[in-house]
Amino acid sequence: MSDTNKLKVHSPYDQQLIKELPMMDGAALEKIIQTAYELFQDQSGWIAPYKRIAILEKARQLMEGKVEELTKTAAQEGGKPYKDSKVEVLRAINGVKIATEEISQLRGEQVPMGLTAASVNRLAFTIREPIGVVASISAFNHPLNLIVHQTITAFAAGCPVIIKPASTTPLSCEAFVAILKEAGVPDGWVQMVLCTNELTEKLATDKRVNFLSFIGSGKIGWYLKSKLAPGTRCALEHGGAAPVIVEQDADMEDMLPLLVKGGFYHAGQVCVSVQKVFVHEKIAKKLAQDMATAAKKLKVGDPLDEATEVGPLIRTGEVDRVEEWVKEAVESGAELLCGGKRISDTCFEPTVLFNPPHDVRVSKEEIFGPVVCVYSYTNREKAIKLANSLEYHFQAAVFTRDIDLALDTVQKLNATAVMVNDHTAFRVDWMPFGGRDASGEGLGGIPHSMHDMTREKLMVFRSKMLP
Amino acid sequence: MSDTNKLKVHSPYDQQLIKELPMMDGAALEKIIQTAYELFQDQSGWIAPYKRIAILEKARQLMEGKVEELTKTAAQEGGKPYKDSKVEVLRAINGVKIATEEISQLRGEQVPMGLTAASVNRLAFTIREPIGVVASISAFNHPLNLIVHQTITAFAAGCPVIIKPASTTPLSCEAFVAILKEAGVPDGWVQMVLCTNELTEKLATDKRVNFLSFIGSGKIGWYLKSKLAPGTRCALEHGGAAPVIVEQDADMEDMLPLLVKGGFYHAGQVCVSVQKVFVHEKIAKKLAQDMATAAKKLKVGDPLDEATEVGPLIRTGEVDRVEEWVKEAVESGAELLCGGKRISDTCFEPTVLFNPPHDVRVSKEEIFGPVVCVYSYTNREKAIKLANSLEYHFQAAVFTRDIDLALDTVQKLNATAVMVNDHTAFRVDWMPFGGRDASGEGLGGIPHSMHDMTREKLMVFRSKMLP
Amino acid sequence: MSDTNKLKVHSPYDQQLIKELPMMDGAALEKIIQTAYELFQDQSGWIAPYKRIAILEKARQLMEGKVEELTKTAAQEGGKPYKDSKVEVLRAINGVKIATEEISQLRGEQVPMGLTAASVNRLAFTIREPIGVVASISAFNHPLNLIVHQTITAFAAGCPVIIKPASTTPLSCEAFVAILKEAGVPDGWVQMVLCTNELTEKLATDKRVNFLSFIGSGKIGWYLKSKLAPGTRCALEHGGAAPVIVEQDADMEDMLPLLVKGGFYHAGQVCVSVQKVFVHEKIAKKLAQDMATAAKKLKVGDPLDEATEVGPLIRTGEVDRVEEWVKEAVESGAELLCGGKRISDTCFEPTVLFNPPHDVRVSKEEIFGPVVCVYSYTNREKAIKLANSLEYHFQAAVFTRDIDLALDTVQKLNATAVMVNDHTAFRVDWMPFGGRDASGEGLGGIPHSMHDMTREKLMVFRSKMLP
Amino acid sequence: MSDTNKLKVHSPYDQQLIKELPMMDGAALEKIIQTAYELFQDQSGWIAPYKRIAILEKARQLMEGKVEELTKTAAQEGGKPYKDSKVEVLRAINGVKIATEEISQLRGEQVPMGLTAASVNRLAFTIREPIGVVASISAFNHPLNLIVHQTITAFAAGCPVIIKPASTTPLSCEAFVAILKEAGVPDGWVQMVLCTNELTEKLATDKRVNFLSFIGSGKIGWYLKSKLAPGTRCALEHGGAAPVIVEQDADMEDMLPLLVKGGFYHAGQVCVSVQKVFVHEKIAKKLAQDMATAAKKLKVGDPLDEATEVGPLIRTGEVDRVEEWVKEAVESGAELLCGGKRISDTCFEPTVLFNPPHDVRVSKEEIFGPVVCVYSYTNREKAIKLANSLEYHFQAAVFTRDIDLALDTVQKLNATAVMVNDHTAFRVDWMPFGGRDASGEGLGGIPHSMHDMTREKLMVFRSKMLP
Repeated sequence: MSDTNKLKVHSPYDQQLIKELPMMDGAALEKIIQTAYELFQDQSGWIAPYKRIAILEKARQLMEGKVEELTKTAAQEGGKPYKDSKVEVLRAINGVKIATEEISQLRGEQVPMGLTAASVNRLAFTIREPIGVVASISAFNHPLNLIVHQTITAFAAGCPVIIKPASTTPLSCEAFVAILKEAGVPDGWVQMVLCTNELTEKLATDKRVNFLSFIGSGKIGWYLKSKLAPGTRCALEHGGAAPVIVEQDADMEDMLPLLVKGGFYHAGQVCVSVQKVFVHEKIAKKLAQDMATAAKKLKVGDPLDEATEVGPLIRTGEVDRVEEWVKEAVESGAELLCGGKRISDTCFEPTVLFNPPHDVRVSKEEIFGPVVCVYSYTNREKAIKLANSLEYHFQAAVFTRDIDLALDTVQKLNATAVMVNDHTAFRVDWMPFGGRDASGEGLGGIPHSMHDMTREKLMVFRSKMLP
Repeated sequence: MSDTNKLKVHSPYDQQLIKELPMMDGAALEKIIQTAYELFQDQSGWIAPYKRIAILEKARQLMEGKVEELTKTAAQEGGKPYKDSKVEVLRAINGVKIATEEISQLRGEQVPMGLTAASVNRLAFTIREPIGVVASISAFNHPLNLIVHQTITAFAAGCPVIIKPASTTPLSCEAFVAILKEAGVPDGWVQMVLCTNELTEKLATDKRVNFLSFIGSGKIGWYLKSKLAPGTRCALEHGGAAPVIVEQDADMEDMLPLLVKGGFYHAGQVCVSVQKVFVHEKIAKKLAQDMATAAKKLKVGDPLDEATEVGPLIRTGEVDRVEEWVKEAVESGAELLCGGKRISDTCFEPTVLFNPPHDVRVSKEEIFGPVVCVYSYTNREKAIKLANSLEYHFQAAVFTRDIDLALDTVQKLNATAVMVNDHTAFRVDWMPFGGRDASGEGLGGIPHSMHDMTREKLMVFRSKMLP
Repeated sequence: MSDTNKLKVHSPYDQQLIKELPMMDGAALEKIIQTAYELFQDQSGWIAPYKRIAILEKARQLMEGKVEELTKTAAQEGGKPYKDSKVEVLRAINGVKIATEEISQLRGEQVPMGLTAASVNRLAFTIREPIGVVASISAFNHPLNLIVHQTITAFAAGCPVIIKPASTTPLSCEAFVAILKEAGVPDGWVQMVLCTNELTEKLATDKRVNFLSFIGSGKIGWYLKSKLAPGTRCALEHGGAAPVIVEQDADMEDMLPLLVKGGFYHAGQVCVSVQKVFVHEKIAKKLAQDMATAAKKLKVGDPLDEATEVGPLIRTGEVDRVEEWVKEAVESGAELLCGGKRISDTCFEPTVLFNPPHDVRVSKEEIFGPVVCVYSYTNREKAIKLANSLEYHFQAAVFTRDIDLALDTVQKLNATAVMVNDHTAFRVDWMPFGGRDASGEGLGGIPHSMHDMTREKLMVFRSKMLP
Repeated sequence: MSDTNKLKVHSPYDQQLIKELPMMDGAALEKIIQTAYELFQDQSGWIAPYKRIAILEKARQLMEGKVEELTKTAAQEGGKPYKDSKVEVLRAINGVKIATEEISQLRGEQVPMGLTAASVNRLAFTIREPIGVVASISAFNHPLNLIVHQTITAFAAGCPVIIKPASTTPLSCEAFVAILKEAGVPDGWVQMVLCTNELTEKLATDKRVNFLSFIGSGKIGWYLKSKLAPGTRCALEHGGAAPVIVEQDADMEDMLPLLVKGGFYHAGQVCVSVQKVFVHEKIAKKLAQDMATAAKKLKVGDPLDEATEVGPLIRTGEVDRVEEWVKEAVESGAELLCGGKRISDTCFEPTVLFNPPHDVRVSKEEIFGPVVCVYSYTNREKAIKLANSLEYHFQAAVFTRDIDLALDTVQKLNATAVMVNDHTAFRVDWMPFGGRDASGEGLGGIPHSMHDMTREKLMVFRSKMLP
């Protein structure tokens, strides 16, 4: 237990206290884990697919009646601008639908027999079973949609789930869990916990937990993975430093708004934000300048204001960090084309850096702030190598009209997804999504998560009456 | 041919008699059908997958020892040049391998239950069963590989098969069936028939036949389909008039040899031969002339000569027909850039026509001869419409470096397959292959044929002890 | 045009006129076909998946508000009892949902390249496209649900569809089409036609039609298939004479209500009605008698009465036919355990026949009336042979507790689906469903129909920069 | 062993030295890892699928010429009897074939777009790429086949692989790597290492390694997993204590030889050996006694003798351990029906224990020796609970003729695979195979391993010309 038993939720924009929520102690957490565990152990109490479907359809309906309310909660606690928060809420609703539909896709298949003399007289099939208790630890940047991704998937797959929201953004989670209760989720199947980091680690590493879903910093994620109980599987979604390759034949007019959106959406606090744009030297400076011009026009401010395009960073410390990194870059030779300064304790100017050195932090680490780096390149192969050179490999992009170059770049970029003529932050909730290498483990995307939250059971019928 | 009981096989190149084979009468055909039917009716005699695999692996080995012999037989009876016939033989061997491997892919899957209250207490799976007796009627242009496609698929899928080769090219089939026998195919599972067209129709429409595989002219194919017994399924592979769209940014140097190969391979006697090339006006005439220049250099002649690039047409009547069509085109305004004349009774000069009218036969029908038509276009949408305007829709192609144009053209061309920067005759034996609309029904490609030669059986276990 | 231009819809129970609807003439039909054709030809006007989804979700909502009304319409015009009609309506609603969800499953896949030296430098994928104009000809026995199966599938798959309901039951179709219009289906995408048989044939065989979906008698279905335009694909769903094998260890108590329901549901007017029950001699007579006892208790009468269990046959002629067949069976030696007589012009007593000879019509043809035949057997292999001996092969069942016998019987019964310990009429709308051999062609079930209403397009990118 | 630079390989049967092999030092290991890493980094040097296929087909041919030699090597170093070792070698050859065939199944699929308004104008597909450097650490009990499973999969999937065989059985691995070299595997793609445990840990946890395949003890496996570099994926295959449920209606005659084979195959040194047989009280004692009678007849002895049925344990210490566990069981109340004593320093008598308490080690831990425990049960639900009660969950079995009980037991047993009327050690090399919970992570089986050794890349084409 930390020194306090209250979690204070503040607006990241103006630091006002929004709400206080009770923190859970170790005994309460233990009870929650045991509840989930016992639900899973008792097969006779599992919820039939058609009942899960009915509950989730009801939940979706309830959400559709609360779009405005959920939007405001998410925007206020998370700082993502109202317009973008509304998009998030609509995506979250769609996510519930995707999970509902995916229930019927959780199916096994025949495993052929008789392919060798030793395997005749058999008929074999797999089925998919829920994996067991899921513990989900979530992040702040999509306070509702990530919760949907990390709880609805588990419930839809037939697993009891324990959800720990980011301590900065628990209110969207709280609202969502209340909706699920109203929709008919039986007690214990979706439980929210608010607790210290110490207890969160206890949850993640408890042997009654079969699956850990973690979204957050790589440092914590890989640490937790190393501490998991034997047999606990996990999905980790960490950060990246999304690279973009821009060939000289790219359609500038089409591309510009995409890069600006991809770079400054949610003040860059997205794991697939456009961060490192490698541009052919013939157009590099021009593109960087155009981006700066566009970035300067972005309206930064109160996330509850419908006109706001860029909101605050989630904590004041983040502004300090971003400011320091930009300063380091500029001092090391980067050209500052716009931004570079804080607007307030939590808001930072959209910033475009041209040709920062490759060994400064904006080039080496995930910025997670409203900063885009544009690098001029002469040789595309070298640009691709640079784009691949970090240990993070998540989403990437290439802009070109040339089909050969597009296909080649797609093959060569080390990334889970490569967009052709789109920004790196493109995501729909049913597509595979996740980091490679240091950026994470396992694939997200609702169907993929549900797949990972189930496990195959093979049944082999042996009978002399079978061929 | 029907009034005699001997089938005389002649070389299409020099009309020499190669061999005489006995023709089958109605009683013999009846016995063959009944043999196949009884084999299928007796489940206890079905050949286990592992035994089919062993037989097919043996067959492949035997074929590998007879590449030269099979090549010469195919080249001599079918007229496809030696080099291309050898490629055909190697493909045929690979086809046996593909079919062998595909046996393990013939598998069922779970059908989910419990998605509604009415479907609880059940567990359901499908399996795939052989469809029954297969009758295959084949064509002359790939005298070995088509036989493989139409017999090995059936045998691998567990079906007894009756194969009727083209009456011009039965020798490759005969050799292949002998190989299968040596490899251990039990009596009756693969039976070759040589008979009149009348008896062939009897075979195709017999109610003991569960599946008709037909490769040949649309006229005959659609006729046979209309006469099938109730319950007989079919796959029909007819002709096309493969269109190509060439944008003005196409890579001319890369494209030229592809179009020439695609247009004059086997003297154009392939259902996916490059026939109608729609070229942007800026480069149309140049491309047509370059094609003519290349076409003139093609070595036309004896298929058994290793240097030959273009061989004879399969029958003398075909040369008459092609000549007449070209004449009609030229008289109607087409510009003859090369060729246009017969070289001998069965060889025709590789011919390039520029801008033939759209209402002459070279524009409206499948040429099936060494003639390529190049059309100049101003408006790509109209060019695509023209490319789609016939009732044949098989393979097509587009040449461009532009990714938007490539994707758009792929979407808009009405074809089973669209190649981007490749000729229309590209085929590998595992890819889906077949005509749409008037060009055929069902998909070929070895795995697809095998899929169609099996049928699904659903088994639903109901038990109160199931969830 | 027939001699009248009005379609009179009568209640099959009491022959009262319910409504008159206008019949269409040839010119009107032509316009309808042309409308559908033009919609399909204009790719730019195709309805995006997300719009189809929205429309179908709206349609489902509208249907949920009209369950009572739709139930009564269906029960009144079709004669299926109220309770069962309500189940049908709820299934129809669920069917719309299944089709909506299946839209996202219409997806292509990679076709591997580089497996041979000739296929390097390529990347290939398939996509699935709508097949084109669908013409659906429907049957009376599920006047709403079959319409859903034959129209929603097409619309969901992106095809314009023309629906011709059974002339006895057009009102449910009319109501459904109105709902679709209200839900936002754009003009021309779902068009209902009422016309003579002659015009119906014209519709089915028009070359602008790409896919015929036919549910009804085999005689008509196979005839239409033989007349299709080249290139038109079809799915045919005809009748059966569903066999059941009952082993001596079957759970009698569990089985009895299932067989009674399966045999007398909708007065046996279902293509998978339990018709021929082969029972081990030790329990055959007892089971037959128990079925007779249960059948006598069934409440036969007005379909609009909520207590009714068995309603009328669809036409008076059907009662004559069934009566004659039963008479023939009894005169040939069958033991009549219950029923056997007409109750009114359209209602027939639930009838159980014991050991009718195998050469009378109740044994050889599809009864499509409330008559179940029980046959005693000594040898199970022979019983299975008899069960397979007709040309109809649709659904079948086996009752046994023995796992070996169950699996063996599943393997040996010639049927598209075999239920273990359930009746033959079990169906959920997402499972594969369809007749084999003379019972039909193609697979129904909403996802399967949607699959068949699309076609694959392969795209092959060739590039020297690809591996 | 770590203090010396020679690895001495002894026969486990008679402790004779077979061969000495050089151990690798840290510098050599570093070079090996770096070689593999650089091969993977250089995409231009990746081996095309068709070349991998050709090499693997050649390897298979070479193996077929060395069956006798490979059998003796495996039997001598590993102690598995000659007959069973030959089966292993034939399975290994088949495994190479399975991997070869699976190359063409490594394919991506379309990810649908346009399902929401935000995802129009896009076309998306996945492809599968090799995951990177694979490090495989293998076990002694199938010295050739496990090596095939852990190296050929990687090579076939396109990954460089480093293989560390068990230090007791490196000779089969050495022979196999030599075969691969002869077959044409280019330098560096398959490298064998022999080194200390310390260096093995270094290999497993090196960040240049993308995938660890580990077969061996859970203690080591879970430890290594906790030490993996961020981003390294793994598959762990540990032990189990395979349970069997025997209902009173089981076919005793059919079952007995299966249980005896499943329990004493390779002296029980298999992770899915039949260990805990829960038998209905009516037949428990009889079955146990019959198993003891059969066990006593097993010929224990020299693995190179073709008549031997049970060979030695791999190390002398294992005999001590097994002896002690059996002793503990007997002293705690288990009835010793046969065996229980050592025959030599490495051979132990096949042993059947009846009703050992649930808290002794033969009941709680994996025995990995020739000991089977039979437990009598009254209540099947409780028997299933007991069967599930350990943390190991791998393969399991049920014997019954009753279809309801079979399906229910399959549902309730916590296992990756449940055999119905077969022993727990049934395995074919293409089926999913692996432990759940503490028994391991990830699925083995050649196709599954290859799937895990690849990773998906999504490519999204965005174009305004796409629908």
